[in-house]
Amino acid sequence: MGRAAAIRPLREVPGWDDEADVIVVGLGAAGACAALEARSAGADTLALERASGGGGTSALSTGQIYLGGGTPIQQKCGFEDSPDEMYRYLMASCGPGVDEPKIRLFCDHSVEHFSWLVAQGIPFKESYYGDGSYTPTDDCLSYSGSELAHPYLDIARPAPRGHTVQQESIESGGMLMRRLLQKVENSGTRILLDTLCETLVLDEDRRVVGVVARIAGSPRYYRARRGVILAAGGFINNREMVERYAPLLLKCTLRLASDGDDGRGIRMGMGAGADTIRMETASIVLPFTVPKALIQGVMVNRQGQRFINEDAYQTVVGEAALRGQDGQVYLIVDDAIYEPPFPPTEVAAVGDTFEELERELGFAQGSLQSTLELYNRGAQRGEDPIFHKASSHLAPLIHPPFAALDYTTETAIWAVFTLGGLRTSPDGAVLTPDGELVEGLFAAGRTTSGLAAQGYSSGLSLADGTFFGRRAGRKAAASISR
Amino acid sequence: MGRAAAIRPLREVPGWDDEADVIVVGLGAAGACAALEARSAGADTLALERASGGGGTSALSTGQIYLGGGTPIQQKCGFEDSPDEMYRYLMASCGPGVDEPKIRLFCDHSVEHFSWLVAQGIPFKESYYGDGSYTPTDDCLSYSGSELAHPYLDIARPAPRGHTVQQESIESGGMLMRRLLQKVENSGTRILLDTLCETLVLDEDRRVVGVVARIAGSPRYYRARRGVILAAGGFINNREMVERYAPLLLKCTLRLASDGDDGRGIRMGMGAGADTIRMETASIVLPFTVPKALIQGVMVNRQGQRFINEDAYQTVVGEAALRGQDGQVYLIVDDAIYEPPFPPTEVAAVGDTFEELERELGFAQGSLQSTLELYNRGAQRGEDPIFHKASSHLAPLIHPPFAALDYTTETAIWAVFTLGGLRTSPDGAVLTPDGELVEGLFAAGRTTSGLAAQGYSSGLSLADGTFFGRRAGRKAAASISR
Repeated sequence: MGRAAAIRPLREVPGWDDEADVIVVGLGAAGACAALEARSAGADTLALERASGGGGTSALSTGQIYLGGGTPIQQKCGFEDSPDEMYRYLMASCGPGVDEPKIRLFCDHSVEHFSWLVAQGIPFKESYYGDGSYTPTDDCLSYSGSELAHPYLDIARPAPRGHTVQQESIESGGMLMRRLLQKVENSGTRILLDTLCETLVLDEDRRVVGVVARIAGSPRYYRARRGVILAAGGFINNREMVERYAPLLLKCTLRLASDGDDGRGIRMGMGAGADTIRMETASIVLPFTVPKALIQGVMVNRQGQRFINEDAYQTVVGEAALRGQDGQVYLIVDDAIYEPPFPPTEVAAVGDTFEELERELGFAQGSLQSTLELYNRGAQRGEDPIFHKASSHLAPLIHPPFAALDYTTETAIWAVFTLGGLRTSPDGAVLTPDGELVEGLFAAGRTTSGLAAQGYSSGLSLADGTFFGRRAGRKAAASISR
Repeated sequence: MGRAAAIRPLREVPGWDDEADVIVVGLGAAGACAALEARSAGADTLALERASGGGGTSALSTGQIYLGGGTPIQQKCGFEDSPDEMYRYLMASCGPGVDEPKIRLFCDHSVEHFSWLVAQGIPFKESYYGDGSYTPTDDCLSYSGSELAHPYLDIARPAPRGHTVQQESIESGGMLMRRLLQKVENSGTRILLDTLCETLVLDEDRRVVGVVARIAGSPRYYRARRGVILAAGGFINNREMVERYAPLLLKCTLRLASDGDDGRGIRMGMGAGADTIRMETASIVLPFTVPKALIQGVMVNRQGQRFINEDAYQTVVGEAALRGQDGQVYLIVDDAIYEPPFPPTEVAAVGDTFEELERELGFAQGSLQSTLELYNRGAQRGEDPIFHKASSHLAPLIHPPFAALDYTTETAIWAVFTLGGLRTSPDGAVLTPDGELVEGLFAAGRTTSGLAAQGYSSGLSLADGTFFGRRAGRKAAASISR
C-alpha cells in the first residue's frame, strides 16, 4: 500500500523545495475550507493535492451538508429548529463514544457556518424537497437522517437538516467543490497538483515542520513554518487497513470514495505520534427505501425476525443489519406495496402465503410466519408496538403474492465509507494517545474521527469537513511561526 | 491517566541507571514467559514490574489455558483433537479480522507449548472436569468455548481445550504465576519491583534503546541493548481509553483485571510509532449458565425475541447481547428448570402465563408469547430449528410459574477485559501502521491484539500471553546488540 506512516527526521531533509506558513494536504472540502481560513488569517498557504485537480471524494458526493439550528432556509421553509434540538438528536444518534465537545460546538455555530458557505458563493435554493440522502432536483432541504423515526422522534423535535447545494441532478458535490476551489484559487493559496504527500518531517523536538511529497516520482520537500493540516480523506480504498481496523466493511460492495481515500493522511499522522480512534466505525448505507413504499415492507434476518424499525434512516438500518445480522437480511413485501426497488436487487422468493415464502427462503418453519402475523396484527391497528415504525409507513401485508427482496451483502448494493481516523481537538489540533498536542499538526475531514461514530445521517461528513476544516485552518494560521 | 505515550529522545537521557540485553516491562504470564525464553537464549534480562510482586492479571485469573491439537491430557481423557480441528474452530470463532498466521502457528505448536509449561513446573492433573470458564476442583480439562454449540459443532470436531492449572479452588492463576515467577527468579533474570515504566527511549534513528521508569517518584533510566518487550496488560482499567476506543464496554460492571491494566504498555508503544488494532474488541462475559439447567432457559431482548442459541459460550452470548441488543436481555425460565443463578441476579417478572410475564416486563403484546410458543413447538420435538440450541439443552417451558431473570447491564454482573492492542508479528515484533518494524520493540499478552478478535473462548489470553510471550523473548534475545 506504499510506505507513508514513518516520519522523516529534519536532519535527513537535503533542502527545502518551497515553504509556507501553512501546508494543506488534500484539496477536498476539508482542505479547501482549511486553506480559505488560513489565508483569511493572513497565512502564506500552500495546498498539495495528489490528483490532477482538487475535489476529492467531496466532488463525487451528493453535495448534502448537515446543518441546522435555524438556518435561513429552514426558517423560510417553515421548519422550527434550534441548536439544542439539533444537539439532542446528534448526541442520541451518533453515540456511544460520541465527541460531545465537537457536537456542541457544531450545533451552536451551524447557522453561522451556513452563512459562511453562502459567502463563499455556494448556492442553496430556498426550497424543501422531502427526504433522502440526495435531491435529484435542484432543491435544498431534506430529512437526511432518522429525525422522524423512533426513538429520535421522542428525543428531539425533528427538522430537516440536509442542505443540498443547488444543482440539477444528484451531482451537487461537484458544484460545491467548483465554487470552493474557485475561492481557494482567488484567495492566493498556492496550489500544487499531482503532488503526492508521503511523510511528515519532524524536528529534534518531534514538532511537525514539513512534508515530503513526490512529483512525477521525485521527492520534494516542503517546509511548514506554522503547521501542516492533513485533509486527505478516509481509508475505505486501502484494503489492508480495512482488513485490520474494520474487517466487517469488506462485505460491502460499493465504496463511496475517490481513489485517494487510501488512509495516507491517517498513516502520516500515526507516524508522528497521533492517536487514532473509532477506526471500526463507518457509514454503512443499505439503500432499500426508493421507492418510498418499500418502507412499508418488513425487514427480516435469516431467523425470520425483524430487528429494527424500517423507517430508520438507511444508514441506521445498514449498520444494524451488518453489525448485528451479518448482512443477511431480506425485505418482505406484498403485491400492494411492491414497486421495483432502486437500486435494483434480486427477488429471493415469492409465495402466495407466508408459509410458502418461508419455505422458499429456507427459513425455519413458523419463524417468518410468526413475525409477519404479529406485524400484521399491529399494522391493522396502525401500530408497531415492538419496533415503533411510524404509522404512516404501516400497512398489513395482506395482498398476495408476497416476495422477499434479497438485501444480503452477497447480492445487494451496500455502500460504505470509513468514519474513524485521527483524534483531534475541536479546533483541529492532532492529539497523541495521552491527549497532548502533536505540535505543528492539524487535521480535518475523513482523515479524522468527527461528529459521528454510528447512526450516521447524510451530510455529516461534508458538515464536519467544512466546519472543522475551517477551524483547523484558523488554528494552524494562529500558531507560532518557526 | 498519567503521561506515558510520548517518547524520550536518547539525547535527553542524563545517564543509564542500569542496562541489559533485554528489558521486560511487566511480570504477568506474558512477561514471565518472555523473560524465561530470553534467558534461555543467553540474554542478560531485566524485568521491571510496577507492583510490589509479579503476577499481574494472570495471577487473578482462573488459570485456564486454551491448548489443544492432541495434548497428553486430551489423549489420556479420551478426546481426539488435532491442530487442524483446533485451527478450524479458532478461525471460525475468532473472526472476522482474525490474525490467521498467529492462529496457525499457535495450533501447530500447542502440544509443544503444553510440554514447555509442564517443564516449567506447572502442574496439570490428568482429568476431565466438564465445561465452563473455571474448575472449582483441582481438575484440568474442560470445554471453555463454543466447541459443542452451533455453528461450531459442524465446522470442527469438538474437543475440550481449556487446560486449568492444578489447584483446589478457582484460584489456579495464582498457582500458575507462583510457579512461573519461581522459574524466572531461578533463571537469573534480574527483577525490579515497584518500578513503573513510563516512556520508551528512542535514538536518532527511532530505534527503541531503553526505558524511563519511576521508583518512589524518581526517574530511572534503563538501557536495552537488544530490545524492550512490552507485556504490561490491557486497558480496561483506564476509563479514558475505554471511552475513546471501546465505549460500549463501560456498561459492563466487573472489570477482570488488576489495577495495572491501565493501557500504559499500549500507549508506550504508540508513542514509538506502533500500530494498534481491534481496539474495540473485548471478552464480554455474561455469566448466566450456572447452574447448568439455566441453559434450558430462553434468552430474549426487549422486543421479546431470541437472538442466539443459549448454549453458545457465555462470552459469545455476552458479546451478542451487548453489541446487538445493547445489553438489554432477560432469561425466561419455568418452574422445572429454575434454580437460583450464580452469580445471583434479580427476577424482573413472574407470571403464570407467557402473557402475564410479557405484560409484567412491559413488552409489546404478543411479542414474547409468539417467541415462546414457537420455541416450545420446536422443543417438544427436541429441535430448535431457528437458533440450533443442542437438544440436550432443550425442554419446552410448560411448568408455571414462569420468570424472567434480569440480565440487563444495569442489574446483572457482566465481566469484561480488553482484547485490542499493539499490532505484532507472530514472533512478537511490534509493527507500524505500514507493517514495518518498530526496531528494538517487542510485545506480548494483552498489550497486544492476539488470537481472538471476537467469539472469545476462555483460556485464550493465558494461551497467547504465554505462547507469544515466549516467542517475543526469543526474538528480542536474538536481535543484534547495540
